[in-house]
Amino acid sequence: MIKKSINFKNKFEKFNDYWSPKVISEMNSYQFKLVKVNGEFIWHKHTDTDETFIVIHGKLTIQFRDGKVDIDEGEMYVVPKNTEHKPMALNECHIMIIEPKGVKNTGNKTDADLEAENEIWI
Amino acid sequence: MIKKSINFKNKFEKFNDYWSPKVISEMNSYQFKLVKVNGEFIWHKHTDTDETFIVIHGKLTIQFRDGKVDIDEGEMYVVPKNTEHKPMALNECHIMIIEPKGVKNTGNKTDADLEAENEIWI
Repeated sequence: MIKKSINFKNKFEKFNDYWSPKVISEMNSYQFKLVKVNGEFIWHKHTDTDETFIVIHGKLTIQFRDGKVDIDEGEMYVVPKNTEHKPMALNECHIMIIEPKGVKNTGNKTDADLEAENEIWI
Repeated sequence: MIKKSINFKNKFEKFNDYWSPKVISEMNSYQFKLVKVNGEFIWHKHTDTDETFIVIHGKLTIQFRDGKVDIDEGEMYVVPKNTEHKPMALNECHIMIIEPKGVKNTGNKTDADLEAENEIWI
């Protein structure tokens, strides 16, 4: 039986909305989510978990209260738990996020426009 | 303060041995490990955890008792826990593995030649 790998590029072709994570796989209690981002997200933090960002295409900047990190294609960064951060991208950027199932994208903040539904699989 | 992202290509330039995972980052109790592989590994399974494979360069095949999966560059696959598998690559292939800290690379098997030390950071 031939099992099917998950191709990031093919998955990114399946959606076009920004800041709206789509689940592509699970490992134990963690999920792999693809997100297209563009512009600025809001300041927030996740009190109970680290959050991994891998840039598949483009360039992501994550601002912190004490600095920032630029993440290019082929690079990753793990934001420590309980750390305020604000992701942003000057141009469309395609990223993969890895975090425990059920984590809210806006963390400790409420934002009706940006809060995304969980468990949207593609 | 400028924080530093992790560049996969730069990290892969730091070692040349095969089947010997190098830790590049942690997320909660999980680790991100880079591995250069070539040829065939041994049949084994991890009884307590899923294991994620992401191919950064080249092509990886994972054989299962009931089939196989080919994973190309820009693709991933999660091997379910307690599933016997045998990774192999016809040519040198660069992969990232994500799994809980402390997982032994040879799983339930003992192989003096292939068993790798954990916690080797690069």
